[in-house]
Amino acid sequence: MRALTADDIEALAVGAWILGTGGGGSPYHALLALRRLYAQGRHVDLIGVDEVADDDAVAVVSVMGAPLVILERLVDSRQIARAVSAMEEHLGRKFKAVMAIEIGGGNGMQPLLAASQLGIPVVDADAMGRAYPEAQMTSFAVGNLAPSPLTSIDPRGSEVIVSKTPTWKWMERTSRKVCTEFGSIAATCKAPRSGAEVRRWGIAGTTTKAIQLGRAVREAQRRHDDPIEAILQTESGRRLFSGKVIEVERRTTEGFLRGRTVFDGLGVDRGAKVELNFQNEWTVLWRDGRPVVSTPELICVLDSESGEAIGTETIRYGQRVTVIVLPAAAVFLTPRGLEHVGPRAFGYDIDFQPVFGS
Amino acid sequence: MRALTADDIEALAVGAWILGTGGGGSPYHALLALRRLYAQGRHVDLIGVDEVADDDAVAVVSVMGAPLVILERLVDSRQIARAVSAMEEHLGRKFKAVMAIEIGGGNGMQPLLAASQLGIPVVDADAMGRAYPEAQMTSFAVGNLAPSPLTSIDPRGSEVIVSKTPTWKWMERTSRKVCTEFGSIAATCKAPRSGAEVRRWGIAGTTTKAIQLGRAVREAQRRHDDPIEAILQTESGRRLFSGKVIEVERRTTEGFLRGRTVFDGLGVDRGAKVELNFQNEWTVLWRDGRPVVSTPELICVLDSESGEAIGTETIRYGQRVTVIVLPAAAVFLTPRGLEHVGPRAFGYDIDFQPVFGS
Repeated sequence: MRALTADDIEALAVGAWILGTGGGGSPYHALLALRRLYAQGRHVDLIGVDEVADDDAVAVVSVMGAPLVILERLVDSRQIARAVSAMEEHLGRKFKAVMAIEIGGGNGMQPLLAASQLGIPVVDADAMGRAYPEAQMTSFAVGNLAPSPLTSIDPRGSEVIVSKTPTWKWMERTSRKVCTEFGSIAATCKAPRSGAEVRRWGIAGTTTKAIQLGRAVREAQRRHDDPIEAILQTESGRRLFSGKVIEVERRTTEGFLRGRTVFDGLGVDRGAKVELNFQNEWTVLWRDGRPVVSTPELICVLDSESGEAIGTETIRYGQRVTVIVLPAAAVFLTPRGLEHVGPRAFGYDIDFQPVFGS
Repeated sequence: MRALTADDIEALAVGAWILGTGGGGSPYHALLALRRLYAQGRHVDLIGVDEVADDDAVAVVSVMGAPLVILERLVDSRQIARAVSAMEEHLGRKFKAVMAIEIGGGNGMQPLLAASQLGIPVVDADAMGRAYPEAQMTSFAVGNLAPSPLTSIDPRGSEVIVSKTPTWKWMERTSRKVCTEFGSIAATCKAPRSGAEVRRWGIAGTTTKAIQLGRAVREAQRRHDDPIEAILQTESGRRLFSGKVIEVERRTTEGFLRGRTVFDGLGVDRGAKVELNFQNEWTVLWRDGRPVVSTPELICVLDSESGEAIGTETIRYGQRVTVIVLPAAAVFLTPRGLEHVGPRAFGYDIDFQPVFGS
């Protein structure tokens, strides 16, 4: 167990936003909330997956919804903590720790907000190693763990428990409709996991990874080095393209933020036309009409100067960006993993073509 | 307490369908299920509201959704009983009895199906005295009783608990979206009521009323008397119009069956054109373009020969029908009652003009 410092929190916000691959929600509001909690003398402890006992119950939290709405309607620490408490009331037992369903974006920070309210530690793991938009797009679903129950909380005072569901897809369908009715945003506590399940199917170490990534960016910025080069080295990534945003189409629909953005190449990429689709997260990158990268590999759109991530809800005309790709967690590269998160799972009639050697 | 007979069940199906004012779902499937249970030697006990202790918990059940779907996708007795059991698990206490949220249509019979599975009696009461389409259209909502929790069950294995909700309208919104995702049909157990609440805000004696009404129709049919005259006498109703269906527009949308039907007058009504709108139930009757009757008064469309009710999901071109109106329960005629179920609550910009003297 180690106490996360105020500096860790700052680095986590930067690193989680990059790993969010455009989604997971902007971490900005969560960062502000955590800064205030730390200023009040509170702190959050981080524990490794080996510090959780086999039968300890771990709460798995996220803010569910469309990133554009998440940016506009704040979710405070009491709301995400309430999702956990509602689950405790439903189960009739207490959680020993809390973890992220996705380390990407604001959802990489939500466990810290819940933990600070509840006085329990955060587990250094998640179930995506990035962010994905749907309930069945997790290592827990790939591992065929139980999809229910789930609690969904709205600040107006509505609370819903999806207590049983036959499949992960039905969990997605039902919980998404509730989330949509709440205004395309809800604080959720996903199906509880035992310590044994977290160790077997969780993606370990992702909070630490996000902190290290964020720290590398912040240090490069401080030293006036190239922060994008620092990201590529820290995460063994590849640079894909640099250019300017010339088009953004965005619509908040069915509880998601969907759309596309088009870039014109700059520098060595001059003349190239790149299109990037998204469903909360970046899904498929097309260069001159051909798919070049797709989920599950992490497509990250970065500000070419600062190296900081740009989200699907914040990207706008004229931005100078660099697109990079980072490797996916191994669990998603199996045939079963690709069924859950490959390009076909997002409705694209293309096979997954890995950038990183298989 | 009295044991309902097989003949009571037959009469209930006829009477509840008339009181359904077009909705509540066809009672046909529930009748078939109850006939089979009675043939197997089971029976259901009916108790008066005075036979429930103040702090007894009473389960309030219904099949929620669009009547056209309810006609096509069967809800069996185990499913409605499961809605009650799921509520018992959520509350951590057992129900002493079960009652209908609405006596109208199949929902007047659902409590009998649940009761036969659970081995508890049915309370002779409901919260509408008819059928209405939405959660806030009940005497319990008019009485400002707690709107939550609610359990919603799908036969594929999905179960949702709406555990908290700030208002009745939010209960309607949230539970309707869940119902819609389940396929516009769900077995539901509404907010549990104490015996004291049932006595104060329930509409007492409506199961018995529906049985007596159905019996009057069946006896008139047997004696070749006019069954519609029997209904008008039993319920102090008024005959409005006789004619032929010349148009039906029907769409299943947002978890409801909405539409309109047009009649051409016959006999003394020859030349008159009557239009009747519906949202699951008949809402407003227009004669030559002017509103003549509206909710909360009970608009009933009857087969002119048999006197049996015709539902919004079964009405079709060419049927010879007689439209009658029956008085509403007093609780809905107060200003607060009309806020919940008057024509404006259904989106019509007209005031309620009672047919029955105020």
